[in-house]
Amino acid sequence: MIQASVVGATGYTGMVLSHLLSRHPQVRMHALTSRSYVGRGVAEVFPHLRLDAQYEPYSAARVAGSDVAFVCHPHAEAHLVAAELVEAGVRVIDLSADFRLRDAAQYAEWYGFEHPYPDLVDEAVYGLPELYRERIAAARLVANPGCYPTSALLAVAPLAKRAAEGAVIIDSKSGVSGAGRGATDKTHFCSVHDNFKAYSEVGHRHTAEIVQEISLLTGRPTPVSFTPHLLPVDRGILTVVYLPLAGGVADAASLHGLYADFYADEPFVEVVTQAPSLREVQWTNYCRVCVRPDPAAGLVKVISVIDNLVKGASGQAVQNMNIMFGLEESLGLEGKA
Amino acid sequence: MIQASVVGATGYTGMVLSHLLSRHPQVRMHALTSRSYVGRGVAEVFPHLRLDAQYEPYSAARVAGSDVAFVCHPHAEAHLVAAELVEAGVRVIDLSADFRLRDAAQYAEWYGFEHPYPDLVDEAVYGLPELYRERIAAARLVANPGCYPTSALLAVAPLAKRAAEGAVIIDSKSGVSGAGRGATDKTHFCSVHDNFKAYSEVGHRHTAEIVQEISLLTGRPTPVSFTPHLLPVDRGILTVVYLPLAGGVADAASLHGLYADFYADEPFVEVVTQAPSLREVQWTNYCRVCVRPDPAAGLVKVISVIDNLVKGASGQAVQNMNIMFGLEESLGLEGKA
Amino acid sequence: MIQASVVGATGYTGMVLSHLLSRHPQVRMHALTSRSYVGRGVAEVFPHLRLDAQYEPYSAARVAGSDVAFVCHPHAEAHLVAAELVEAGVRVIDLSADFRLRDAAQYAEWYGFEHPYPDLVDEAVYGLPELYRERIAAARLVANPGCYPTSALLAVAPLAKRAAEGAVIIDSKSGVSGAGRGATDKTHFCSVHDNFKAYSEVGHRHTAEIVQEISLLTGRPTPVSFTPHLLPVDRGILTVVYLPLAGGVADAASLHGLYADFYADEPFVEVVTQAPSLREVQWTNYCRVCVRPDPAAGLVKVISVIDNLVKGASGQAVQNMNIMFGLEESLGLEGKA
Amino acid sequence: MIQASVVGATGYTGMVLSHLLSRHPQVRMHALTSRSYVGRGVAEVFPHLRLDAQYEPYSAARVAGSDVAFVCHPHAEAHLVAAELVEAGVRVIDLSADFRLRDAAQYAEWYGFEHPYPDLVDEAVYGLPELYRERIAAARLVANPGCYPTSALLAVAPLAKRAAEGAVIIDSKSGVSGAGRGATDKTHFCSVHDNFKAYSEVGHRHTAEIVQEISLLTGRPTPVSFTPHLLPVDRGILTVVYLPLAGGVADAASLHGLYADFYADEPFVEVVTQAPSLREVQWTNYCRVCVRPDPAAGLVKVISVIDNLVKGASGQAVQNMNIMFGLEESLGLEGKA
Repeated sequence: MIQASVVGATGYTGMVLSHLLSRHPQVRMHALTSRSYVGRGVAEVFPHLRLDAQYEPYSAARVAGSDVAFVCHPHAEAHLVAAELVEAGVRVIDLSADFRLRDAAQYAEWYGFEHPYPDLVDEAVYGLPELYRERIAAARLVANPGCYPTSALLAVAPLAKRAAEGAVIIDSKSGVSGAGRGATDKTHFCSVHDNFKAYSEVGHRHTAEIVQEISLLTGRPTPVSFTPHLLPVDRGILTVVYLPLAGGVADAASLHGLYADFYADEPFVEVVTQAPSLREVQWTNYCRVCVRPDPAAGLVKVISVIDNLVKGASGQAVQNMNIMFGLEESLGLEGKA
Repeated sequence: MIQASVVGATGYTGMVLSHLLSRHPQVRMHALTSRSYVGRGVAEVFPHLRLDAQYEPYSAARVAGSDVAFVCHPHAEAHLVAAELVEAGVRVIDLSADFRLRDAAQYAEWYGFEHPYPDLVDEAVYGLPELYRERIAAARLVANPGCYPTSALLAVAPLAKRAAEGAVIIDSKSGVSGAGRGATDKTHFCSVHDNFKAYSEVGHRHTAEIVQEISLLTGRPTPVSFTPHLLPVDRGILTVVYLPLAGGVADAASLHGLYADFYADEPFVEVVTQAPSLREVQWTNYCRVCVRPDPAAGLVKVISVIDNLVKGASGQAVQNMNIMFGLEESLGLEGKA
Repeated sequence: MIQASVVGATGYTGMVLSHLLSRHPQVRMHALTSRSYVGRGVAEVFPHLRLDAQYEPYSAARVAGSDVAFVCHPHAEAHLVAAELVEAGVRVIDLSADFRLRDAAQYAEWYGFEHPYPDLVDEAVYGLPELYRERIAAARLVANPGCYPTSALLAVAPLAKRAAEGAVIIDSKSGVSGAGRGATDKTHFCSVHDNFKAYSEVGHRHTAEIVQEISLLTGRPTPVSFTPHLLPVDRGILTVVYLPLAGGVADAASLHGLYADFYADEPFVEVVTQAPSLREVQWTNYCRVCVRPDPAAGLVKVISVIDNLVKGASGQAVQNMNIMFGLEESLGLEGKA
Repeated sequence: MIQASVVGATGYTGMVLSHLLSRHPQVRMHALTSRSYVGRGVAEVFPHLRLDAQYEPYSAARVAGSDVAFVCHPHAEAHLVAAELVEAGVRVIDLSADFRLRDAAQYAEWYGFEHPYPDLVDEAVYGLPELYRERIAAARLVANPGCYPTSALLAVAPLAKRAAEGAVIIDSKSGVSGAGRGATDKTHFCSVHDNFKAYSEVGHRHTAEIVQEISLLTGRPTPVSFTPHLLPVDRGILTVVYLPLAGGVADAASLHGLYADFYADEPFVEVVTQAPSLREVQWTNYCRVCVRPDPAAGLVKVISVIDNLVKGASGQAVQNMNIMFGLEESLGLEGKA
């Protein structure tokens, strides 16, 4: 049995991780830590979870008894705990953005301070199993991808080598849980319900992560125009990628075949012929992808859907843990999260 | 007083028109016609409307007593009534797509049959006041624009002359009322609620209308990649236009100034500096537009929001009527629809 | 022109009042005060309002120049400002609960401290126009009713004299705006959306107000069992009253007639024969009421719907102002709020 | 392995049954029948189900090879198939109302025709496990309870013997899936969203079923006033029962203890001290119940929540199957439906 801890277990990603790990057949929960809810029970804080455990304060000593720790602290804080735990010999899956940018200079640019652990930045593996499975298996520190990047990269990857010069346009729409549990004007029911808007219309921090990974896929610096929106739904991201192709746009069947082949062995990517809706992936670790030629416009549209808290965060983290510990990749991820 | 009739008054656009016209200070309602609700009262069919009138069967003779008729029949049917009424000397505002495509051959291609009134197609004026106000004033037959085209064209117009070669990408998200009153699997609450999807991902019929008008604005055939989505909201469209610019992307202030100047005299277009949400225009005839440079991607993003049933249909139709009859353009369009 | 001020104009009730007063033909806005948004513009804080005004800090001296002040401070605070302004000669409509309980001892019991202005408690008029129109006309201080009480009292009033002994059961369901603008776990989109719950299941503070007024209507101390619920909607309250009747339950037509007669002259109460939905009153000052006999159970069900922020708060406050200043009662309350 | 068939598998209850049975460890799916979707695959009709099976036309001969059949045809039709299958030796769980009323005369009164199988009416067992577990175990024909009755009866049962004379008031609120998959004006997104209403305000057909079972619990004919409402949510019912008590209202702790004892051995009833929300039971077979004294009104409020399609229909049907075939009662019902 793997001893697993969740550090920062009372945010949304921590909540979903607690649930997933509690029913994982090869996991024994070691510690659930929290800053705000120490001493309180999981079912008290989240009445829809039927989970008998209590939140503890974080200490490196306590968590050091784990085989793996999931760090769910906010960006610009998580690296402190992650570094400490790696040092203590715990394998870490960090759900923040702190180790996603491979170039520490980029981190400084987007987050406003020098990353204190550049060596760990170098060592960290970007935890998208469909692209980096083998490196994840051996990693001490996995940088679990952002939710928007996951949805975009799985849409782009099969065609990246054929992309024409020019910007890749990524228009994403996310449910509110992506904004976190914090109660703000922005997450107030009356702000979101029956409403819709774009936000961080240029310069959302996930842009850097997307540019980095798409450029690796295309093999050259690739500009990206990324626009996130806030949907009046709880869970899910739908992304449309507008990808200009070099050398002409193939027909629908060829494109579908190319995607189906690319993901043929993937347990959690489903290539479909009907444009997918959020409903089809909510509460699951699946990503559904649909590719459509738009020859009149000289581009391909790729539509992807994920659950932002599962494949976009906690489910993908469990998938990474399964890879790191040599388990069946889908263990504990069947059924609804 | 203008005698006004609504033909097909029990769909959503007819419902909103009935409401708007009933409180318009210069309008006297002549006839509200319906196929399904003959003899029933407006307030019985739409309990939220406090309007004392009854639905009648359509006849050209009855409606011929009007100064203006709003035709709200479905595409591929509306032209029959519109032609008959124009013939009878009634000025017609047609809310269907039947007279929007200027080239009758295009109509045949998209709707599958020869347009029986090519002369009226030639005569009809595309009813977007911000572009064609003078021609609308003199028109016998106005083709009221589609909801998606309205949102896209108002976003594109100020910069169209500067567009680079290449496709204009238009990613639109619409509330469910845009799908009409018909009860189908697609409009069932349980299909839409807490869900989101793209539909008609390539080849939505509004594409032809958008291509036609954008090409007129740019002055050359301009490819468009248009993707509509279905939002779990009742009213509103949010469109993001990704517009590649020739000659470099100006800064935010210059772009805002350009839009503000372009629409300085428009009563219903508001150029804003914060990305607008649907809430800001729902139930109104306003369009809000916000322009954002994305220099790293070599393009400009323009975000527009409208209420699909007001500025995207019935409100714009009333605005056109005001222009046609020499009234103040905003008469009867203040407050919430 | 009446000079009107709103004290605490940036909560939801203040927001709706600002909008209603700004378009009221006999009102000139004197001051909008705020604690959190001093110096900021209305349209900046509420982008859907097209209102050119700025928030000022509150001072009695500044507001004293008004003919009427609407006090929108929270319960247990509002009485301070209200007393100060009455003293300064301003007629006050207080939207808090501070002057609704006629017995100051009751106030102490429910709010935990002695009311510092028992004389004003005695003087204040409970501002439900349908019951107290004449006293409102002459009042210096109006205690604007709570939203739940408004929905319950208008449902009960016509039959109160025929109520049997025993508890009146009031089951109410409210939209989220009733919980105020405060961002909390409870108002977070992900807590409310696709969800439903009862809250304050016994002992909600509005109970005292309802018991007081129903007892006045029946003429004897009348027990009430009141249960509020939180609906995943923005605006509106639907209340079902289960009223046991003495002397048998009349048939549907007689009951409807009785209600129709009782409210025949009321501009804002509509007695209907189909069970009303929230949609029919949202954004309006109307209350719709429907009465249904349930003879097998020996009782009558009365269903009422209002918009909690309009007839349940700010609209009713404007209605009270109209009465106090001898204006047409519906002035400024036509159309949608 | 139990061979199981679903007759009428493409309504909502059939859809949930297909999903639950497909992952039940002791079930082999025999046939899924449909009238509208013959020859089509499950995943094609319900893209969110990852289930590889096809819909067949119904025939008694085909289904007769099953050990158990779940009949999901509409009321007033289902009895035809149920009778035929019982005759063929298949144990039947009927999800319609056709065998719920124990007195065939009652059936005639509510459904307008003589029940053609009065002997089966006598034989059928009302399938609420918490009340009739032993009889269910031996039954050939189980009448699976209605969703509203399930929520009401589990709330009332522990206190039924202490109920005072007088009506039991039951105020229920249901998600839209309870209205079925049929696309109608009533289930159109724009009718339900951001809206709320009561319907069938007196005389909903579930009333007869509730009266029957509550009267059995109290031991005397007991009047019931039942009011259902339509919530803008997909899944779930919240019921508040107002129960007048004979002999005084006990305190909260005693009442909670009484409920906790009554349901101590029940796998799917959770007695809680915080008023439950729909979220806590959606997609599960749990019922949560909370009891609150309201001594001032001389009654007790009991709040219950279920998922209308799981504990209110298909999950309870699987629970009944487990009982009938001697399996662990919760088998296949863990996790989310």
